Formats: sequence, C-alpha cells, structure tokens
Amino acid sequence: MGHGVKQLAVLGSTGSIGQQTLQVVRALPHKFRIVGLAAGKNVNLLAKQINEFKPRFVYYQDKEVPAHLASTEYEFLSLEDIARHPQVDIVVIATSEKSGLSPTLAAVKAGKKICLANKESLVMAGEIFTNEARLNAAQILPIDSEHSAIWQCLEGETQPAAQLMLTASGGPFHGYSSAQLSGVTAKQALKHPSWQMGRKVTIDSATLMNKGLEVIEAHWLFNMPFDNIKVLIHPQSIVHSMVEFIDGSIKAQLSYPDMRLPIQYALSYPERLANPQLPRLDWSLINSLTFEQPNFDTFPCLKLAIAAGKKGGTYPTVLCTADEVTVELFLSQRIRFIDIARLVEQALAEHQAIAHPTLEEILAADVWTREKVLQLATGDNPC
Amino acid sequence: MGHGVKQLAVLGSTGSIGQQTLQVVRALPHKFRIVGLAAGKNVNLLAKQINEFKPRFVYYQDKEVPAHLASTEYEFLSLEDIARHPQVDIVVIATSEKSGLSPTLAAVKAGKKICLANKESLVMAGEIFTNEARLNAAQILPIDSEHSAIWQCLEGETQPAAQLMLTASGGPFHGYSSAQLSGVTAKQALKHPSWQMGRKVTIDSATLMNKGLEVIEAHWLFNMPFDNIKVLIHPQSIVHSMVEFIDGSIKAQLSYPDMRLPIQYALSYPERLANPQLPRLDWSLINSLTFEQPNFDTFPCLKLAIAAGKKGGTYPTVLCTADEVTVELFLSQRIRFIDIARLVEQALAEHQAIAHPTLEEILAADVWTREKVLQLATGDNPC
Repeated sequence: MGHGVKQLAVLGSTGSIGQQTLQVVRALPHKFRIVGLAAGKNVNLLAKQINEFKPRFVYYQDKEVPAHLASTEYEFLSLEDIARHPQVDIVVIATSEKSGLSPTLAAVKAGKKICLANKESLVMAGEIFTNEARLNAAQILPIDSEHSAIWQCLEGETQPAAQLMLTASGGPFHGYSSAQLSGVTAKQALKHPSWQMGRKVTIDSATLMNKGLEVIEAHWLFNMPFDNIKVLIHPQSIVHSMVEFIDGSIKAQLSYPDMRLPIQYALSYPERLANPQLPRLDWSLINSLTFEQPNFDTFPCLKLAIAAGKKGGTYPTVLCTADEVTVELFLSQRIRFIDIARLVEQALAEHQAIAHPTLEEILAADVWTREKVLQLATGDNPC
Repeated sequence: MGHGVKQLAVLGSTGSIGQQTLQVVRALPHKFRIVGLAAGKNVNLLAKQINEFKPRFVYYQDKEVPAHLASTEYEFLSLEDIARHPQVDIVVIATSEKSGLSPTLAAVKAGKKICLANKESLVMAGEIFTNEARLNAAQILPIDSEHSAIWQCLEGETQPAAQLMLTASGGPFHGYSSAQLSGVTAKQALKHPSWQMGRKVTIDSATLMNKGLEVIEAHWLFNMPFDNIKVLIHPQSIVHSMVEFIDGSIKAQLSYPDMRLPIQYALSYPERLANPQLPRLDWSLINSLTFEQPNFDTFPCLKLAIAAGKKGGTYPTVLCTADEVTVELFLSQRIRFIDIARLVEQALAEHQAIAHPTLEEILAADVWTREKVLQLATGDNPC
C-alpha cells in the first residue's frame, strides 16, 4: 500500500480539471496509472486520451458509442461502476454540475479516496456525502485551490480551526458599481484576471457565486460553522486561503494560480511529490499581496449563497441549479449579468424546502428549480 | 502527562522575552506554573516576580544576594541546576548572549523541553546542541517569531521542506543607502518600526545581523542547507516566515508582531491554547503585504552571517561576539553604525577557526573575539 502505483479513474477527463489531472499523471508515471476515463461530449479528445493512457474502463455520455471509440481493449462502464470498481484506488470527480452527484455517492459508498473537483456534490448533498464518507471510511479530498489551501494549513494541527478565510480574486468586475455591472457582457465576464478555467466557473467567479459555493463546500469539508468562514478579496490569487487557530495564529498557503498543484496534492496525499512542471513562486516578481473585504451589496450572489448554506436542506440545491441555469442564459445573451443574482434570489424565495433531503429529493429540487428559473426568466406563467 | 499543569523555569525572567513569558503564564494559570526564575541585574523586578509567582528555585547573577531577595520560601540554585532540575518540565532560555549556552546545555543533557529565545546558543553551538538533543531526547523549540512560523508550517508535513523563507522587517533603515547609513545615530537605530524588543536585538534588526543569526539558527533547528534558506524583506511584519515544499506549495504563518504568540506556542506545543490576550489579525485594517529582496551590499552583516554560518566551526561564535561587542560600542557612541559590519568582518578575517569546536573552544573564541574587536576598534596594537 502507498508505495505502489496508484490506479486512477478520472471522471470528466476532457474538461479543464480532467485535462490538468492527466498532465499531472503524465509528469509522474511512476506514481499514477490511469485505469478509468469518462467524458461527456468531447469524443475526439477522449479518443486521444484513451490512446495515450490505455484505460481499462471507459464511459462516454452518448448512448451510441462512436465507431472510433469501440474497442476490445477496454470495457464500457457507467460512471458509478467506474467510481466503485475494485481496481480503482482514487476517483477524480471532475464532471460538471449534478452529473457528479451519483458517481461521487458510488465512490463514497465504496470507501474510495475521492479527489473532488465537482462543487455541486458537496453544495447540494454535503450532508449525505459527509455522513456516508464517515460510515464507509471514504476520504473526500478537495481539488480546489481554496479548499486545498485550507486542508494543507490544517494538516498536523491537533485542534479544530477557529476560522477559515477563503480568498477570492474578485473576478473581472472587482471594484465595479452595481450600475456598471448592469451593462457588462459575457465576453467581459469570461476574461478572468488570474485563473484559466471553464466558462461556468469563470462566470461564477465574476458574480462571486463561486466563492459562495466554496463557503458551503468548506462548511461540509471542514465541519465549520458558516459564521466562522470569511471571504477576503485578494486579486493576485497567490494566497489561496488561510486558517486562523484558537491562539490567533494564521496559516496561509501560497502558490501561483495553477490547478495542477491542488490536483497533485490530492492525488499524492499524504505525500508531496516533486514535479518540475509545477511553477515555484518567484519572490523577486511579487511586490505586494493585497486584501479587501468583499462587497456583498454589489455582488449579492455571495450573500445568497451563504444564506442558502445556513438554511440548508434543499436550498443549496436551488441556489446551485438556479445559478447553473441563469449562467447559461447569460452566456447565450438572454439575460443580463445582474439578472443572475435576481433570478437566483427569486427561485430561493419561492422554494418550499425539504430539510435533510435524500438524493432523490435533491434531484427533484433540481428539476423544480430549472423549470422555475426558466419561467421566471421568460416571464411566462404556465397555467 | 500533558494534561497536568506544566512546571516552568524562566531563565532571564526580567528581560523582554522573560517578561512576556510571564504574561502568557499569568493568562493561563491552569496550564503553567512557574517553579524557577532567574535574572541578571534587575533585582527589583525579580523580587516582584518572586512575590507574584512564588517559584521554588531562584537564581540571581550577583554573588551577594540583596536582603529583600533572601528567603526561606525558595532555594538559590545555579542556572544549570535550575535548567536540569527534575521538577522542571519546560525550560525557557531567555537569557542574553552567551550566558544562555551553559544552562541550555544542562537542559539539553537532562532531556528537557527547551523553549529557546537565546540566539547565541544555536548560532555558537548549534552542532553541539542539536547532537546532544538527539542523544538525550530533548526538544529544542524556538521562541522567535520567524522560527516559530517555520515550525508551525512544517507541522504535520511528512517530508523535508525544499526551502525556508525568513522574513525581515528591514528595520528602521530599510531603503537607506550606504551613504545615509554612515550618519545614523543610536537613537534612530533604536526606533524599530514594527517590533518592541530589547536594545541589542533592535540594533541587530537595523543592521540585518539579526536576520543573519536567524539564518544560522534555522540551519540547525530545521537541518536545512544554507543555500535553501532565503531572506525576504517584509516591512509589515505580519508574515513571520514561510516554507516551500517539494511540490512548490508554500505555507506561511501570519499574526501581528507580538512575541507572546510564539512564546505560548512553544510552551503549549503540541496543543494550541485560546488566550483572549493574544491579538487576532483584523483583515479590515490590512490592505497590503509587501515583499522585497534584501540588499546585501548596503547591509553587509546579513552576508557576513550567512558566510560565517556556511564556514561553521568557531566562525559563527566570532560573528556573534564581534556583533555583541560592536553593538555595545555603537550604543555608547564609540563607533559609527557602519563600523559594526566593518569590525565584524575584520574579526572574522583574522580568526583562526576550529572545526567542530567543544563548548570550551567556543568560549575561548568568544574571549579572543572580545579582545580582538576592542583592539580593532580602538586602533591599539598591543605589543
């Protein structure tokens, strides 16, 4: 154990985190071997990845497997069957949105080591996953620069933290007024100042919804009350988050904004591995690290997310799905940037929540929210 | 073990670190009890401390114990006998200069937990102390904001660090040119921008010798090659030091500049203790943390210290003693600020070093250096 090559399944291998996970594996072939790959729609990239990594298990979202994917070299399995397969040591959940929920649950129930990049799993079903992880001795390790930072800072500490401080770049509209925000375009919102990420998370970063979702994740990952989780705007994205302990001492984790580091840390934990491809901070180029309080009035998504997290039950699901739908509407230019928060708020206000929901109830709340937001957005009133 | 009240001896109880140690003990009476107090010259303060803490063992430097210290309530012992006394769990070495060497050795040989504020112990005799600590299962825990920061950042890590980054405020003359430095006065040098400390260390902070001594300490405390110890100027004194790991991840420790935190951490380790008297960082007041490379040409003491550390043997002793003597000469206005580095450099150049010295050889190098520096400073050539 531990010294052998670890067998990895990467669910969502063609997305941003999936591709970077494969970069890490490519750099450390003596440590990791890809045994499972799963992708949604990018069949060409998936085919290339299969060719390079020769996985034993493959999942492809479309029912009809394209001819050039069909092979006798590997087995087609469902996401869940890959996630719980006995030959898989580590499951990387890098699928988007709620497609991560079911394979995460399968991996948790199988007691796997789960490297979790999918935000929705913990935001929608944090209670279920943390309970099941405890029952099945599964490890849920965050692949997220902020939660990885907190996790690294907590390592070796014998007592709970007093406070977590999640940093946020502030996104492309940091410092904008509400009036300025009303006119911003999708093109502007997609230009993130410090991180290269997928489209959805880039817009979430611009609204600060991303940070709100991370506050909810942090609550579940680190068993921390919401009142002890703070957000700090840090435009340089060098300090990835901080932990304050009961004696007032603070630890911070720093690096360039590069997702390969938190990915590798989760994969290699509790070891750290030397990887010449990971950049080292050049202190001759870093003059100043700045910090500001977030503006909850101009960026109401942060406030909405924390409130939904505190209320719990199906509220975080409504938040998450309403955000997903409104971001899509914004990217297709059917609503304005500022409508994202407004519609999310309305959906939350109209929701009849269920406390301690089952996964089915969570998925039902997701369906309800999709319809509700589309209805609110189009102004339709179905009879 | 661990749950009982820990019995402390504070050697150097009337100095800056000694007094702050007693503040921590005063705030946490259910955790620590003072059983030993030792002071050099401040007999009035020592008498007050004895009255308050009722120690069992007392040391006072002067041969003749003043009437109001004489008592049947406590026993007069040597520094060494207090340091190794079976009733002492933790020895705080906060004595100044080389007076810390012998009691530190006694504590190390007795396998104590040693909270070390005395820089000279590790700078002059790092090899002896770290070897003896290993042999006797003694713990040498740093009381120093920088080394405490590094130690906290290393906690829980399973692999050696790749690099240590010691931060330095830069002192009152940060940004000065060599020409400007030639005219500075002791009064100016004693005005430290961020730390309240004793006179010697305040001047050492102005010359950056303090940081050089800390580099040597870090080398011994953390078994780190000199080439992997860097210094960064950080005028706000909020980030107390940083550690870079083999994967490029960096951890930093932050707090307001207040020595009570590293003192308490060393005393309570591996626990952390809540202490309402310790300040918590107010992020609404912290806008910017800045970092710069040190200027080795304008502040040559840093360069001299690292070179002496690398050469090892009795060189660090010569460095340390030459600095002590020259700082005293500067404070009594007998030499200029810039003469400190010049005279230290000359003493090092004229020294015939001994490799792997014994404590006696170290003390002999100390005596040689005192004479040499005074001779160099006065320009006398004794025949």
